[in-house]
Amino acid sequence: MIQQQYPSQLLEKAVSEFAKLPGIGRKTALRLVLWMLRQENSDVEQFADAVSRLKQEIKYCHVCHNISDSDTCPICADPRRDASVVCVVENIQDVMAIENTQQYHGLYHVLGGIISPMDGIGPSDIEIDSLVERVKAGGVSEVILALSPTMEGDTTNFYIYRKLSPTGVKVSVIARGVAVGNELEYTDEVTLGRSIMNRTLFEE
Amino acid sequence: MIQQQYPSQLLEKAVSEFAKLPGIGRKTALRLVLWMLRQENSDVEQFADAVSRLKQEIKYCHVCHNISDSDTCPICADPRRDASVVCVVENIQDVMAIENTQQYHGLYHVLGGIISPMDGIGPSDIEIDSLVERVKAGGVSEVILALSPTMEGDTTNFYIYRKLSPTGVKVSVIARGVAVGNELEYTDEVTLGRSIMNRTLFEE
Repeated sequence: MIQQQYPSQLLEKAVSEFAKLPGIGRKTALRLVLWMLRQENSDVEQFADAVSRLKQEIKYCHVCHNISDSDTCPICADPRRDASVVCVVENIQDVMAIENTQQYHGLYHVLGGIISPMDGIGPSDIEIDSLVERVKAGGVSEVILALSPTMEGDTTNFYIYRKLSPTGVKVSVIARGVAVGNELEYTDEVTLGRSIMNRTLFEE
Repeated sequence: MIQQQYPSQLLEKAVSEFAKLPGIGRKTALRLVLWMLRQENSDVEQFADAVSRLKQEIKYCHVCHNISDSDTCPICADPRRDASVVCVVENIQDVMAIENTQQYHGLYHVLGGIISPMDGIGPSDIEIDSLVERVKAGGVSEVILALSPTMEGDTTNFYIYRKLSPTGVKVSVIARGVAVGNELEYTDEVTLGRSIMNRTLFEE
Protein backbone atom coordinates (compact mmCIF):
# COMPACT_ATOMS: atom_id res chain seq x y z
CA MET A 1 0.00 0.00 0.00
CA ILE A 2 1.22 3.45 -0.87
CA GLN A 3 1.90 5.70 2.13
CA GLN A 4 -0.91 8.24 2.42
CA GLN A 5 0.22 11.82 1.68
CA TYR A 6 -1.24 14.41 4.05
CA PRO A 7 -1.30 18.04 2.95
CA SER A 8 -0.74 19.19 6.54
CA GLN A 9 1.37 18.09 9.50
CA LEU A 10 -1.40 19.13 11.87
CA LEU A 11 -3.84 16.90 10.02
CA GLU A 12 -1.39 14.00 9.98
CA LYS A 13 -0.76 14.36 13.71
CA ALA A 14 -4.48 14.40 14.52
CA VAL A 15 -5.13 11.39 12.28
CA SER A 16 -2.28 9.48 13.95
CA GLU A 17 -3.71 10.25 17.38
CA PHE A 18 -7.19 9.07 16.42
CA ALA A 19 -5.78 5.95 14.74
CA LYS A 20 -4.26 4.91 18.09
CA LEU A 21 -7.77 4.37 19.49
CA PRO A 22 -8.77 0.70 19.59
CA GLY A 23 -10.76 -0.40 16.54
CA ILE A 24 -10.07 2.81 14.61
CA GLY A 25 -7.92 2.55 11.49
CA ARG A 26 -6.29 5.40 9.56
CA LYS A 27 -9.16 5.69 7.09
CA THR A 28 -11.77 6.04 9.85
CA ALA A 29 -9.42 8.36 11.76
CA LEU A 30 -9.19 10.65 8.72
CA ARG A 31 -12.98 10.65 8.39
CA LEU A 32 -13.38 11.60 12.06
CA VAL A 33 -10.72 14.33 11.88
CA LEU A 34 -12.20 15.91 8.75
CA TRP A 35 -15.64 15.78 10.36
CA MET A 36 -14.14 17.55 13.36
CA LEU A 37 -12.67 20.26 11.10
CA ARG A 38 -16.18 21.05 9.91
CA GLN A 39 -17.47 21.61 13.46
CA GLU A 40 -17.52 24.89 15.38
CA ASN A 41 -14.36 25.94 17.18
CA SER A 42 -16.13 25.82 20.53
CA ASP A 43 -17.38 22.26 19.93
CA VAL A 44 -13.89 21.04 19.14
CA GLU A 45 -12.51 22.81 22.22
CA GLN A 46 -15.20 21.15 24.30
CA PHE A 47 -14.18 17.77 22.94
CA ALA A 48 -10.47 18.29 23.62
CA ASP A 49 -11.26 19.72 27.04
CA ALA A 50 -13.49 16.79 28.02
CA VAL A 51 -10.73 14.32 27.14
CA SER A 52 -8.06 16.32 28.92
CA ARG A 53 -10.11 16.97 32.08
CA LEU A 54 -11.25 13.35 32.25
CA LYS A 55 -7.70 12.12 32.55
CA GLN A 56 -6.48 14.89 34.84
CA GLU A 57 -9.38 15.14 37.26
CA ILE A 58 -10.85 11.68 37.47
CA LYS A 59 -10.48 9.99 40.85
CA TYR A 60 -10.77 6.41 42.00
CA CYS A 61 -13.06 5.72 44.96
CA HIS A 62 -10.87 4.86 47.98
CA VAL A 63 -13.42 2.26 49.09
CA CYS A 64 -14.39 0.33 45.96
CA HIS A 65 -11.89 1.63 43.34
CA ASN A 66 -14.68 2.58 40.96
CA ILE A 67 -13.98 5.78 39.00
CA SER A 68 -15.53 8.85 40.52
CA ASP A 69 -15.45 12.65 40.57
CA SER A 70 -14.76 12.64 44.31
CA ASP A 71 -12.76 10.52 46.77
CA THR A 72 -15.80 8.40 47.52
CA CYS A 73 -17.94 7.29 44.59
CA PRO A 74 -21.71 8.06 44.52
CA ILE A 75 -22.54 4.40 45.16
CA CYS A 76 -20.33 4.06 48.27
CA ALA A 77 -21.56 7.45 49.51
CA ASP A 78 -25.26 6.55 49.15
CA PRO A 79 -26.71 5.76 52.64
CA ARG A 80 -29.65 3.89 51.07
CA ARG A 81 -27.37 1.15 49.75
CA ASP A 82 -26.73 -2.01 51.75
CA ALA A 83 -23.10 -1.72 52.88
CA SER A 84 -23.08 -5.30 54.19
CA VAL A 85 -23.07 -6.78 50.68
CA VAL A 86 -20.07 -6.27 48.36
CA CYS A 87 -20.16 -7.30 44.72
CA VAL A 88 -16.74 -8.02 43.23
CA VAL A 89 -16.40 -7.07 39.54
CA GLU A 90 -13.57 -6.89 37.05
CA ASN A 91 -14.03 -3.34 35.81
CA ILE A 92 -16.13 -0.19 35.62
CA GLN A 93 -18.22 -1.38 32.69
CA ASP A 94 -19.35 -4.30 34.85
CA VAL A 95 -20.49 -1.93 37.62
CA MET A 96 -22.51 -0.02 35.04
CA ALA A 97 -23.96 -3.24 33.58
CA ILE A 98 -25.10 -4.43 37.03
CA GLU A 99 -26.45 -0.99 37.98
CA ASN A 100 -28.56 -1.10 34.82
CA THR A 101 -30.30 -4.28 35.99
CA GLN A 102 -31.64 -2.31 39.00
CA GLN A 103 -31.60 -5.62 40.90
CA TYR A 104 -28.66 -4.92 43.15
CA HIS A 105 -28.55 -2.49 46.07
CA GLY A 106 -25.27 -3.35 47.77
CA LEU A 107 -21.80 -1.91 47.19
CA TYR A 108 -19.06 -2.91 44.77
CA HIS A 109 -15.40 -3.75 44.70
CA VAL A 110 -13.69 -3.12 41.36
CA LEU A 111 -10.67 -5.38 40.91
CA GLY A 112 -9.36 -3.46 37.91
CA GLY A 113 -8.55 -6.70 36.12
CA ILE A 114 -8.66 -10.44 36.44
CA ILE A 115 -5.98 -13.01 37.25
CA SER A 116 -4.52 -13.99 33.90
CA PRO A 117 -1.08 -15.60 33.89
CA MET A 118 -1.10 -15.51 30.06
CA ASP A 119 -1.20 -11.69 30.19
CA GLY A 120 1.16 -11.54 33.14
CA ILE A 121 -1.54 -10.37 35.57
CA GLY A 122 -1.18 -11.93 39.00
CA PRO A 123 -3.21 -11.55 42.23
CA SER A 124 -1.05 -8.65 43.40
CA ASP A 125 -1.73 -6.64 40.25
CA ILE A 126 -5.42 -6.29 41.03
CA GLU A 127 -7.34 -5.04 44.08
CA ILE A 128 -7.65 -8.33 45.97
CA ASP A 129 -5.65 -7.37 49.07
CA SER A 130 -7.76 -4.26 49.54
CA LEU A 131 -10.89 -6.44 49.30
CA VAL A 132 -9.59 -8.72 52.05
CA GLU A 133 -8.74 -5.68 54.19
CA ARG A 134 -12.20 -4.27 53.58
CA VAL A 135 -13.86 -7.50 54.75
CA LYS A 136 -11.52 -7.77 57.75
CA ALA A 137 -12.43 -4.22 58.76
CA GLY A 138 -15.92 -5.60 59.45
CA GLY A 139 -19.45 -4.69 58.45
CA VAL A 140 -19.49 -6.95 55.39
CA SER A 141 -21.68 -10.04 55.68
CA GLU A 142 -21.58 -11.24 52.08
CA VAL A 143 -19.21 -11.00 49.13
CA ILE A 144 -20.76 -11.69 45.73
CA LEU A 145 -18.30 -12.74 43.03
CA ALA A 146 -19.54 -11.36 39.69
CA LEU A 147 -16.67 -12.03 37.33
CA SER A 148 -17.01 -13.20 33.73
CA PRO A 149 -17.59 -16.96 33.54
CA THR A 150 -14.29 -17.64 31.82
CA MET A 151 -11.22 -19.60 32.84
CA GLU A 152 -9.64 -16.41 34.23
CA GLY A 153 -12.84 -15.48 36.05
CA ASP A 154 -13.04 -18.92 37.68
CA THR A 155 -9.39 -18.74 38.71
CA THR A 156 -9.89 -15.31 40.26
CA ASN A 157 -13.10 -16.46 42.01
CA PHE A 158 -11.24 -19.38 43.52
CA TYR A 159 -8.29 -17.27 44.63
CA ILE A 160 -10.54 -14.70 46.30
CA TYR A 161 -12.58 -17.44 47.97
CA ARG A 162 -9.42 -18.94 49.48
CA LYS A 163 -8.26 -15.53 50.66
CA LEU A 164 -11.62 -14.70 52.25
CA SER A 165 -12.23 -18.11 53.87
CA PRO A 166 -10.41 -17.24 57.14
CA THR A 167 -12.64 -14.19 57.69
CA GLY A 168 -15.78 -16.37 57.75
CA VAL A 169 -17.63 -14.00 55.41
CA LYS A 170 -20.30 -15.57 53.21
CA VAL A 171 -18.96 -15.82 49.63
CA SER A 172 -21.43 -16.31 46.81
CA VAL A 173 -21.07 -16.40 43.05
CA ILE A 174 -23.57 -15.11 40.48
CA ALA A 175 -25.70 -17.85 38.96
CA ARG A 176 -24.48 -19.30 35.72
CA GLY A 177 -27.42 -18.02 33.80
CA VAL A 178 -24.76 -16.08 32.00
CA ALA A 179 -23.64 -18.07 28.97
CA VAL A 180 -20.16 -19.54 29.52
CA GLY A 181 -17.52 -17.80 27.43
CA ASN A 182 -19.40 -14.51 27.15
CA GLU A 183 -18.22 -11.13 28.44
CA LEU A 184 -20.27 -9.77 31.35
CA GLU A 185 -20.36 -6.33 29.77
CA TYR A 186 -22.45 -7.52 26.82
CA THR A 187 -24.95 -9.68 28.70
CA ASP A 188 -28.59 -8.52 28.57
CA GLU A 189 -30.10 -6.97 31.72
CA VAL A 190 -32.67 -9.71 32.39
CA THR A 191 -30.13 -12.54 32.35
CA LEU A 192 -27.64 -10.54 34.36
CA GLY A 193 -30.26 -9.44 36.89
CA ARG A 194 -31.52 -12.99 37.38
CA SER A 195 -27.99 -14.30 37.77
CA ILE A 196 -27.52 -11.95 40.72
CA MET A 197 -30.87 -12.95 42.25
CA ASN A 198 -30.01 -16.67 41.94
CA ARG A 199 -26.47 -16.47 43.28
CA THR A 200 -25.29 -19.65 45.01
CA LEU A 201 -22.83 -20.33 47.83
CA PHE A 202 -19.29 -20.69 46.59
CA GLU A 203 -18.13 -24.30 47.10
CA GLU A 204 -14.81 -25.89 46.41
CA MET B 1 -33.47 0.75 26.88
CA ILE B 2 -32.55 1.81 30.39
CA GLN B 3 -30.55 5.04 30.62
CA GLN B 4 -26.93 4.18 31.33
CA GLN B 5 -25.78 5.27 34.81
CA TYR B 6 -22.30 6.79 34.85
CA PRO B 7 -20.38 6.88 38.12
CA SER B 8 -18.74 10.17 37.14
CA GLN B 9 -19.79 13.40 35.43
CA LEU B 10 -16.36 13.68 33.82
CA LEU B 11 -16.77 10.22 32.34
CA GLU B 12 -20.28 10.98 31.13
CA LYS B 13 -19.12 14.22 29.51
CA ALA B 14 -16.24 12.49 27.71
CA VAL B 15 -18.51 9.67 26.53
CA SER B 16 -21.05 12.21 25.22
CA GLU B 17 -18.32 14.04 23.31
CA PHE B 18 -17.02 10.84 21.71
CA ALA B 19 -20.57 9.70 20.89
CA LYS B 20 -21.03 12.85 18.78
CA LEU B 21 -18.43 11.56 16.30
CA PRO B 22 -20.01 10.08 13.16
CA GLY B 23 -20.45 6.30 13.33
CA ILE B 24 -19.63 6.12 17.05
CA GLY B 25 -22.41 5.07 19.43
CA ARG B 26 -22.46 5.39 23.23
CA LYS B 27 -21.18 1.86 23.80
CA THR B 28 -18.18 2.37 21.52
CA ALA B 29 -17.65 5.84 23.01
CA LEU B 30 -17.49 4.33 26.50
CA ARG B 31 -15.02 1.71 25.32
CA LEU B 32 -12.80 4.41 23.78
CA VAL B 33 -12.98 6.63 26.86
CA LEU B 34 -12.12 3.80 29.26
CA TRP B 35 -9.25 2.81 26.99
CA MET B 36 -8.07 6.40 27.15
CA LEU B 37 -8.22 6.34 30.96
CA ARG B 38 -5.77 3.45 30.94
CA GLN B 39 -3.22 5.41 28.85
CA GLU B 40 -0.41 7.61 30.17
CA ASN B 41 -1.25 11.18 31.11
CA SER B 42 1.12 12.52 28.46
CA ASP B 43 -0.46 10.39 25.71
CA VAL B 44 -3.91 11.70 26.54
CA GLU B 45 -2.61 15.27 26.63
CA GLN B 46 -1.04 14.71 23.21
CA PHE B 47 -4.36 13.50 21.87
CA ALA B 48 -6.33 16.45 23.24
CA ASP B 49 -3.64 18.85 22.08
CA ALA B 50 -3.58 17.44 18.51
CA VAL B 51 -7.35 17.90 18.22
CA SER B 52 -7.27 21.39 19.68
CA ARG B 53 -4.29 22.61 17.60
CA LEU B 54 -5.71 21.10 14.41
CA LYS B 55 -8.81 23.22 14.65
CA GLN B 56 -7.06 26.38 15.85
CA GLU B 57 -4.04 26.42 13.57
CA ILE B 58 -5.12 24.74 10.34
CA LYS B 59 -5.20 27.03 7.31
CA TYR B 60 -6.82 26.77 3.90
CA CYS B 61 -4.59 27.31 0.86
CA HIS B 62 -5.52 30.68 -0.67
CA VAL B 63 -4.99 29.24 -4.16
CA CYS B 64 -6.68 25.83 -4.16
CA HIS B 65 -8.55 25.80 -0.79
CA ASN B 66 -6.92 22.56 0.25
CA ILE B 67 -6.10 22.37 3.96
CA SER B 68 -2.54 23.33 4.79
CA ASP B 69 -0.22 24.39 7.60
CA SER B 70 0.69 27.58 5.72
CA ASP B 71 -1.11 30.09 3.49
CA THR B 72 -0.08 28.19 0.37
CA CYS B 73 -0.36 24.40 0.45
CA PRO B 74 2.68 22.19 -0.32
CA ILE B 75 1.20 21.18 -3.70
CA CYS B 76 0.60 24.77 -4.92
CA ALA B 77 4.02 25.79 -3.57
CA ASP B 78 5.87 22.97 -5.37
CA PRO B 79 7.70 24.42 -8.44
CA ARG B 80 7.96 20.97 -10.03
CA ARG B 81 4.19 20.71 -10.44
CA ASP B 82 2.50 21.73 -13.68
CA ALA B 83 0.59 24.92 -12.82
CA SER B 84 -1.18 24.97 -16.19
CA VAL B 85 -3.43 22.02 -15.29
CA VAL B 86 -6.03 22.32 -12.52
CA CYS B 87 -7.97 19.31 -11.26
CA VAL B 88 -11.33 20.18 -9.65
CA VAL B 89 -12.32 17.91 -6.76
CA GLU B 90 -15.06 17.91 -4.15
CA ASN B 91 -12.98 17.59 -0.99
CA ILE B 92 -9.62 16.97 0.66
CA GLN B 93 -10.01 13.18 0.66
CA ASP B 94 -10.26 13.32 -3.14
CA VAL B 95 -6.97 15.24 -3.35
CA MET B 96 -5.34 12.55 -1.24
CA ALA B 97 -6.89 9.76 -3.33
CA ILE B 98 -5.56 11.29 -6.57
CA GLU B 99 -2.15 12.02 -5.03
CA ASN B 100 -1.92 8.35 -4.06
CA THR B 101 -2.21 7.32 -7.72
CA GLN B 102 1.05 9.22 -8.42
CA GLN B 103 -0.30 9.76 -11.92
CA TYR B 104 -1.13 13.45 -11.65
CA HIS B 105 1.35 16.29 -11.48
CA GLY B 106 -0.82 19.37 -11.90
CA LEU B 107 -2.53 21.49 -9.25
CA TYR B 108 -5.94 21.17 -7.59
CA HIS B 109 -9.01 23.21 -6.83
CA VAL B 110 -11.01 21.98 -3.84
CA LEU B 111 -14.69 22.97 -4.13
CA GLY B 112 -15.49 22.06 -0.53
CA GLY B 113 -18.75 20.47 -1.62
CA ILE B 114 -20.92 19.70 -4.59
CA ILE B 115 -24.07 21.35 -5.93
CA SER B 116 -26.94 19.53 -4.24
CA PRO B 117 -30.32 21.31 -4.12
CA MET B 118 -31.67 18.50 -1.91
CA ASP B 119 -29.14 19.46 0.78
CA GLY B 120 -29.55 23.19 0.11
CA ILE B 121 -26.07 23.55 -1.40
CA GLY B 122 -26.02 25.92 -4.37
CA PRO B 123 -23.18 27.12 -6.65
CA SER B 124 -22.40 30.08 -4.38
CA ASP B 125 -21.84 27.83 -1.35
CA ILE B 126 -18.82 26.16 -2.92
CA GLU B 127 -15.59 27.50 -4.43
CA ILE B 128 -16.73 27.88 -8.04
CA ASP B 129 -16.34 31.68 -8.34
CA SER B 130 -12.74 31.46 -7.11
CA LEU B 131 -12.09 28.77 -9.75
CA VAL B 132 -13.39 31.05 -12.51
CA GLU B 133 -11.25 33.92 -11.15
CA ARG B 134 -8.24 31.64 -11.06
CA VAL B 135 -8.71 30.64 -14.71
CA LYS B 136 -9.37 34.27 -15.75
CA ALA B 137 -6.12 35.31 -14.05
CA GLY B 138 -4.36 33.27 -16.73
CA GLY B 139 -1.73 30.53 -16.81
CA VAL B 140 -4.27 27.70 -16.78
CA SER B 141 -4.61 25.74 -20.04
CA GLU B 142 -6.76 22.82 -18.84
CA VAL B 143 -9.34 22.21 -16.10
CA ILE B 144 -9.98 18.55 -15.29
CA LEU B 145 -13.32 17.86 -13.61
CA ALA B 146 -12.85 14.96 -11.18
CA LEU B 147 -16.14 14.88 -9.29
CA SER B 148 -18.02 11.74 -8.28
CA PRO B 149 -20.08 10.28 -11.18
CA THR B 150 -23.40 10.99 -9.45
CA MET B 151 -26.35 13.21 -10.31
CA GLU B 152 -24.88 15.99 -8.13
CA GLY B 153 -21.44 15.52 -9.69
CA ASP B 154 -22.88 15.76 -13.19
CA THR B 155 -24.85 18.88 -12.27
CA THR B 156 -21.76 20.53 -10.81
CA ASN B 157 -19.64 19.51 -13.81
CA PHE B 158 -22.16 21.07 -16.15
CA TYR B 159 -22.43 24.29 -14.11
CA ILE B 160 -18.66 24.71 -13.99
CA TYR B 161 -18.38 23.96 -17.71
CA ARG B 162 -20.90 26.73 -18.50
CA LYS B 163 -19.09 29.18 -16.24
CA LEU B 164 -15.69 28.41 -17.76
CA SER B 165 -16.82 28.39 -21.42
CA PRO B 166 -16.29 32.14 -21.97
CA THR B 167 -12.65 31.89 -20.86
CA GLY B 168 -11.87 29.42 -23.65
CA VAL B 169 -9.98 27.11 -21.28
CA LYS B 170 -9.96 23.40 -22.17
CA VAL B 171 -12.35 21.51 -19.85
CA SER B 172 -12.04 17.73 -19.54
CA VAL B 173 -13.71 15.16 -17.32
CA ILE B 174 -12.13 12.02 -15.85
CA ALA B 175 -12.93 8.84 -17.78
CA ARG B 176 -15.96 6.90 -16.63
CA GLY B 177 -16.04 3.22 -17.32
CA VAL B 178 -15.56 -0.23 -15.90
CA ALA B 179 -13.35 -0.18 -12.81
CA VAL B 180 -10.04 -1.96 -13.22
CA GLY B 181 -10.22 -5.41 -11.63
CA ASN B 182 -14.02 -5.55 -11.63
CA GLU B 183 -16.06 -8.28 -13.30
CA LEU B 184 -17.90 -6.99 -16.38
CA GLU B 185 -20.87 -9.15 -15.40
CA TYR B 186 -21.45 -7.19 -12.19
CA THR B 187 -20.99 -3.72 -13.62
CA ASP B 188 -24.18 -1.65 -13.71
CA GLU B 189 -25.86 -0.94 -17.04
CA VAL B 190 -25.27 2.81 -17.05
CA THR B 191 -21.52 2.48 -16.45
CA LEU B 192 -21.18 -0.36 -18.96
CA GLY B 193 -23.25 1.50 -21.57
CA ARG B 194 -21.18 4.65 -21.14
CA SER B 195 -17.91 2.71 -21.25
CA ILE B 196 -18.95 1.31 -24.66
CA MET B 197 -20.00 4.76 -25.93
CA ASN B 198 -16.73 6.30 -24.79
CA ARG B 199 -14.48 3.49 -25.96
CA THR B 200 -10.90 4.41 -26.83
CA LEU B 201 -8.53 3.05 -29.48
CA PHE B 202 -6.70 -0.04 -28.29
CA GLU B 203 -3.03 0.72 -27.90
CA GLU B 204 -0.22 -1.65 -27.19
